[in-house]
Amino acid sequence: MKTYRVGLVGITGYAGMEVARLLAGHPALKLAMACSRAEAGKRLGEFYPFLEHLPGSDIAISVFDPEKAAQLCDIVFLSVPAGTAMGMAVPLLVGGVKVVDFSADFRLRDPQVYEEWYNHAHTATELLAQAVYGIPELYAEQIGKARLVANPGCYPTCSILGLYAALRCGLIEEESIVIDAKSGTSGAGRKAAVPTLFCEVADTFRAYGLPRHRHTPEIEQEVSLLAGRDVRLSFTPHLVPMNRGIFATIYARLKNPRLTADEARDAFISTWEGNRWIRVLPRGALPEVRYVRGTMFCDVSVVNDPRTGRLIVLSVIDNLCRGAAGQAIANANLMCGLPVETGLTVAPSV
Amino acid sequence: MKTYRVGLVGITGYAGMEVARLLAGHPALKLAMACSRAEAGKRLGEFYPFLEHLPGSDIAISVFDPEKAAQLCDIVFLSVPAGTAMGMAVPLLVGGVKVVDFSADFRLRDPQVYEEWYNHAHTATELLAQAVYGIPELYAEQIGKARLVANPGCYPTCSILGLYAALRCGLIEEESIVIDAKSGTSGAGRKAAVPTLFCEVADTFRAYGLPRHRHTPEIEQEVSLLAGRDVRLSFTPHLVPMNRGIFATIYARLKNPRLTADEARDAFISTWEGNRWIRVLPRGALPEVRYVRGTMFCDVSVVNDPRTGRLIVLSVIDNLCRGAAGQAIANANLMCGLPVETGLTVAPSV
Amino acid sequence: MKTYRVGLVGITGYAGMEVARLLAGHPALKLAMACSRAEAGKRLGEFYPFLEHLPGSDIAISVFDPEKAAQLCDIVFLSVPAGTAMGMAVPLLVGGVKVVDFSADFRLRDPQVYEEWYNHAHTATELLAQAVYGIPELYAEQIGKARLVANPGCYPTCSILGLYAALRCGLIEEESIVIDAKSGTSGAGRKAAVPTLFCEVADTFRAYGLPRHRHTPEIEQEVSLLAGRDVRLSFTPHLVPMNRGIFATIYARLKNPRLTADEARDAFISTWEGNRWIRVLPRGALPEVRYVRGTMFCDVSVVNDPRTGRLIVLSVIDNLCRGAAGQAIANANLMCGLPVETGLTVAPSV
Amino acid sequence: MKTYRVGLVGITGYAGMEVARLLAGHPALKLAMACSRAEAGKRLGEFYPFLEHLPGSDIAISVFDPEKAAQLCDIVFLSVPAGTAMGMAVPLLVGGVKVVDFSADFRLRDPQVYEEWYNHAHTATELLAQAVYGIPELYAEQIGKARLVANPGCYPTCSILGLYAALRCGLIEEESIVIDAKSGTSGAGRKAAVPTLFCEVADTFRAYGLPRHRHTPEIEQEVSLLAGRDVRLSFTPHLVPMNRGIFATIYARLKNPRLTADEARDAFISTWEGNRWIRVLPRGALPEVRYVRGTMFCDVSVVNDPRTGRLIVLSVIDNLCRGAAGQAIANANLMCGLPVETGLTVAPSV
Repeated sequence: MKTYRVGLVGITGYAGMEVARLLAGHPALKLAMACSRAEAGKRLGEFYPFLEHLPGSDIAISVFDPEKAAQLCDIVFLSVPAGTAMGMAVPLLVGGVKVVDFSADFRLRDPQVYEEWYNHAHTATELLAQAVYGIPELYAEQIGKARLVANPGCYPTCSILGLYAALRCGLIEEESIVIDAKSGTSGAGRKAAVPTLFCEVADTFRAYGLPRHRHTPEIEQEVSLLAGRDVRLSFTPHLVPMNRGIFATIYARLKNPRLTADEARDAFISTWEGNRWIRVLPRGALPEVRYVRGTMFCDVSVVNDPRTGRLIVLSVIDNLCRGAAGQAIANANLMCGLPVETGLTVAPSV
Repeated sequence: MKTYRVGLVGITGYAGMEVARLLAGHPALKLAMACSRAEAGKRLGEFYPFLEHLPGSDIAISVFDPEKAAQLCDIVFLSVPAGTAMGMAVPLLVGGVKVVDFSADFRLRDPQVYEEWYNHAHTATELLAQAVYGIPELYAEQIGKARLVANPGCYPTCSILGLYAALRCGLIEEESIVIDAKSGTSGAGRKAAVPTLFCEVADTFRAYGLPRHRHTPEIEQEVSLLAGRDVRLSFTPHLVPMNRGIFATIYARLKNPRLTADEARDAFISTWEGNRWIRVLPRGALPEVRYVRGTMFCDVSVVNDPRTGRLIVLSVIDNLCRGAAGQAIANANLMCGLPVETGLTVAPSV
Repeated sequence: MKTYRVGLVGITGYAGMEVARLLAGHPALKLAMACSRAEAGKRLGEFYPFLEHLPGSDIAISVFDPEKAAQLCDIVFLSVPAGTAMGMAVPLLVGGVKVVDFSADFRLRDPQVYEEWYNHAHTATELLAQAVYGIPELYAEQIGKARLVANPGCYPTCSILGLYAALRCGLIEEESIVIDAKSGTSGAGRKAAVPTLFCEVADTFRAYGLPRHRHTPEIEQEVSLLAGRDVRLSFTPHLVPMNRGIFATIYARLKNPRLTADEARDAFISTWEGNRWIRVLPRGALPEVRYVRGTMFCDVSVVNDPRTGRLIVLSVIDNLCRGAAGQAIANANLMCGLPVETGLTVAPSV
Repeated sequence: MKTYRVGLVGITGYAGMEVARLLAGHPALKLAMACSRAEAGKRLGEFYPFLEHLPGSDIAISVFDPEKAAQLCDIVFLSVPAGTAMGMAVPLLVGGVKVVDFSADFRLRDPQVYEEWYNHAHTATELLAQAVYGIPELYAEQIGKARLVANPGCYPTCSILGLYAALRCGLIEEESIVIDAKSGTSGAGRKAAVPTLFCEVADTFRAYGLPRHRHTPEIEQEVSLLAGRDVRLSFTPHLVPMNRGIFATIYARLKNPRLTADEARDAFISTWEGNRWIRVLPRGALPEVRYVRGTMFCDVSVVNDPRTGRLIVLSVIDNLCRGAAGQAIANANLMCGLPVETGLTVAPSV
C-alpha cells in the first residue's frame, strides 16, 4: 500500500493525541511532522508517554513552518484554534499540501455568519468556495477531490448524522427541532482552566453556552441545505463527567403524527443501508456512549411518541474520534484515494 | 422544642440512607423505628457504617408491624416499592399514625392513570381523596392538615418547580413542553443489577425509559392543574455518571416571542420572592448539580432564545434530598406543625 | 451562645469553600470577613453560588488588611500558600487576633527542616515556639490556650491518627513504617492546571511527589515524638479520581509477631475509647471514604497478617473537612472556649 | 496469514468482551464460537451492541459442548469461574483443542495451595504438570509448546512484571516486599451485586480482601521461583473508581542501601532491553493507568529512597487487556506459532 506523509500542527490538545493514536496503527498514513511552539524540541513520545514504543514517538516536535511542511508532508492536519487555522492553510495550499482543518474557519459557507458567531474577521474568504464540509456520508465525492476539507465540529457531526434520515425522508417539521446535547469533557479542550478541573466536573452536571453556542450555525447550515430553506433550531450543550462522547437527544414534531414506530425506523434503516459506520439500533434498543468509544460509529435510535406527536432521535458518537481525529483521517483517506475506512476499523473499547 | 418520633420502613435504599443522615441532625424529628425484612436484627449503625457515633445508630432494625409502629411512631416514612406502600399505609392511618409515602401509590389522583402506568391495580383508592401531593411550595397548607402525604417523584419535583412560574405567569404554550432530564445514578435505586454497575455507568451516558417513563403522568397531572386543561408533554430521562442530582432542561415555545430575557426572569423572581429554597439565578448564571448537593435548594435559570422563540428553563435539585428524603422531612415538619425548614438548612457540600 | 467573628483569608480554594459551608451552620462562629485579592468587590454568594440564601453570602469580599481584620474578627483562618501565611500571621497576632493557619508555615518545629522541604526561608521563627500543632485528639489542652494554631496537613492528619494507637501501645517497629496514601483530587487545590483537568484524572490513577512529598517531615515529626526518637518512614501519595477523601494504607512490622487480631484491635479501641470522631471499625469491617464524607470522622481498621508478621492499619478521613476546614473549626472552637464539636456533628453524605 | 479458530466460553464478563474487541481486529485468530448458557440463542452482536458491524457479531451464542468445540475451534479461551474451568479443560484437551484458561485453576503448581486458598478440591491435578503459567516475558518458549496455558491473574501479572528485574538482579530483600495494589472496578467482574454499583464505587475508595486475597499465593509462587526460596509478602488490593487498570506500588528494602537511582534504573532497563511491552520510564517520569489503556504495555518506574533505604517500584497495566484478554491472545499467538504481538500492537486510548 502506498503511504502518505501526514503533518500534525497542534499536538497539545486531545484531538491531536487522538490523531497520534490512530495514525500509530494506520497502514497508509504515516505521521511525518508534529508541530507545537510550546513543546518544540522534545521527542513526541516524551510529550505523549502513551505513544512510546509505537510509530511516531521518535518525531522531533518542531515549530510550524509552511515551507518545511510542504517538503515533509502530503497532507497536514491543523488542530489549532479558529482564527489561527486560516492563516496557516493559505501557504500550505500554495505549497501544494492538502489540508484538513479541525477548526471552524472553513465550515461556514457564509463569512458573515462566521464573523457574527466567532467575533473576528475571516481573512481567507477566497478559500471558502473550495473548502468541503467533511462528513464522508454526505460529501464523499467532493472530499475525494478536495484540497481543503473543513473537518466538522463534534456536536454538528452528531446532530447532522442523527437528523439526516428524518430530514431527507421528510418526517419532521424543521422549525420544531430541539437538540439537547451532552458531551464528555475532552470536548472542552486541554487548556489549564478552573471550570474543567476534575473537582469542578466530577459528580456534577451543567449546561453551557446557551442559547448561542458556536456550533449552532454549523448545524443550521446543513439542516437548511437538507430542508431546502433557512431553518432555525435550538441547540443546548451540556457537560458530562465523562472523558469522551457526545449524546444528542433530538426532538421534533412529526409531519404525520400517525407515523408508526416501524415506519420511522424503516426510513432510517433504508437511508443508511450499507453504511458501515451508522448503526441504526434494533427496535427497543437505545444507544450508549461507551459502545462507540474510540471509533467512527454513530449509533442512532428512533423513538416515536404518539402521545405527543413527536419523533425523538438519539444520536451518539465519540467526540474525539468520529467528532475530530477519526473523521479527519477518513477525510484524508478519501483525499489520498484510499478507501474511507482505512485504518479506522477498530472495535470500541468498552 | 417538642420532639416527634419517626419510623422508617425500607432502609436499604438510598432514600432511606438520606433520611437517616438528615434525621441525625434534626432538632425535633427523631428516628424511632427502622424496618427491613432482610436486615432485621442488626443495629442500624451496623448496616449504615456512616451513622455510627450519631443519633439513630443504636436502633435495632425490625420487621414492619403496623401495630408496633403505631406505638413507637408519630409519623412513618414508607420507602418501599410502588404497590407495597398502599398496603402498609392503610393500617398505619387506622392506627392513628401519619404517613409520608415515598412511592407513587398516592401521587396520581386518578387510579386509572395509576393502573395504566404501573401495571397493577390500586387497592386503596379510598385514600386518594385525602392524600396530598407533597411539594411544600405548592401545597403547604394542605400538607399541614394532611394525615397522608404522597412524596413526589424526583423528576416531577424538579420539573414542576422549574415550570411553575412559567405556567402560572402564562409565558409558554403548554403543548410545546419538552423536558430533557438527566439524573444521577442513585435515582436508579440500590438493587443488585448489571445495568447500574460502576463499569456500566462510569465514563458513558445513556437515555432510558423513553417515551413512557412513569414520572410522565405525575408531571402532566400538575402541569395540567396549573394550565387548567389536559396537557401532554415529552419527558426523557438520562443516566449521568454521578451519584446524586437531577438537571432538567425544559424547552417550550413562548406565547409572546418578543418577551425579553429580563421580563422572563422577572416573572420567575416575583413568583418565588421570599421562598428560601427556590433560587432564581442571576442573569447569565447557569445552575450546577453540585451547588444543591445534599440540600432542599432548587436552582433555576431562565434563558430566552429570541432566534427560535423558545423559553429554556434549567432546573436543578438533589434527587435524594429535595427529590425524596429532604422533601419528606419538610412535609413531616408541616404535618407536625413545625416550621417547614426545621433541620433542613444545611449548606451544599461542594 | 456567645458568638465569635471569623475571618477567612483565601476564599478561592476548596478549603475556603469548605469553611464557608461549615460556618453557614455553626451556632457560635460567624463568618465576618472574606478576603481575596482576585475576587475583591464581589459578594461572597456571587463567587460561591452554593452559599446563596445562607449565612455569609452577603459578605463583601475584600483585600486582606491586618488592621481591618483586627477590628472585624476574633479569629482569622489563613487559607493561603506556605510562605505567604507567616507574613500575614505576624500582624494579626500583634493586633490581638487569634490565627489558625492552614499552610505548613508553623507545622514544623525545626525551621531548618522547613527550609529543606519548602525551599524558602522561614521569616517568623519567633512564632514557632507558641504555635500548636492542631490535632485536637493529641493537643486539645495546648490548642485551648493557643493564639496561633498550625492546622495540620491532610495526609499527616490521616496518617498520624491511624498510627497513634499503634505507636502509643508499642505495637510496631517504627523504622518499618510504609504509608501508601490515596487522595481525592481536591487535595491538589483549585488552580488552573492541566494535570488536574477532569480528563487527566478521570478513569486513571497515578502516584506523585515520591519519594519526597512535603507532608513527609510533618508525619515524621509527630511519629518521632510518639516514638521518642527520630524516625524515617516511606510516604507515597496517589491521586484518585474522586473529589474528596484520603485513604491511608499503613504497613509496619509487629514487634510481637504473635500478637492476635483481637489484641491489636483492643489496643486501638482502648486508646480511642470515648472519642467521638475516631471510629475503630468492628472486626472484619473496612473503612470507605464515603462514610466520612463532609465530616470530622476518622475511620480506622486494624488488620494483622500473621503470614508476614505485619500490622496493616487503614485510616480514612475527608481531606477538606477533617483534613482542613473542619479541623480548623474544631481548633477555633477550642481557642474560643467552645466544646470542640460545636457545629461539627453532621452526618456523612453518602 | 494462516488463520486459527478461537472459541470463547463465558461471554458475559468484561474479559470476554475484551476478547471479542481484540479478536475483531486480529489478522489470524478468528472468533468461531461463543458460549453462554444464559444468553444461548442470541446473536453475539445482540448481546454485545458494541460489536455490531464488526467481525464476530454474527456468531450465534451456544451452550458449551466440548465435542462441538473440538470441531469448531483450534483453541478455546475459558472465561469461567475457578472450579468450573478445570472440568471444561479436560475434554477439550482430550479432543485435541488447545486451551487458555482465564481462571486460577491451573496457575498454582501445588494443588494443596490451590485448595487452601480456593476452598474446593482440585479435580484435574494430572494437568498441572503440563500447564504453563502464561506470562510471555517469562515463559515464551514453554508457552509455544503448551497445549494448556494458565492465563495469569491481573494483579499477579502487574506485580510480577514490576518485581521481575529487581529480583533477577538481586536488588531487594525478598521478605520485605509490600505490594499495595489498586484496581479499576472491571476487575470485580460483571455480576449483579450491590458493592460494585456505581453509587457504591464512584467518588469513594476502599480496600478489600486483605490480608488474604487469592492472588497472593500466585504472586508468591513466581517471586519464590525467582528468589530461589519460599517468600511471603504482603499484598493489599484496593478498588478505584475507574473502569480499567491496575496500579501496583511495590516497596522493598534495598540489599545495598547505597544503590543509586541510576543503578537501580539501569538494572531494569537492561533486563527489559528489546522488550516491546515493558516500558521502563525515563528518570523522574511516573506511570499512569490511562497510558496503557487497552494495550499490552506494562509501564514501570523505579524510585529509590535513600532516606529509608527502600526501592519503590510502580508497575501499571490494563487489567482487561494485559491482565486478561490481551495476554490470552498473546499466549494463543505463541501456541499457534504466530509472532507474540500479532493483533496486539494498538496504541492506548487516552
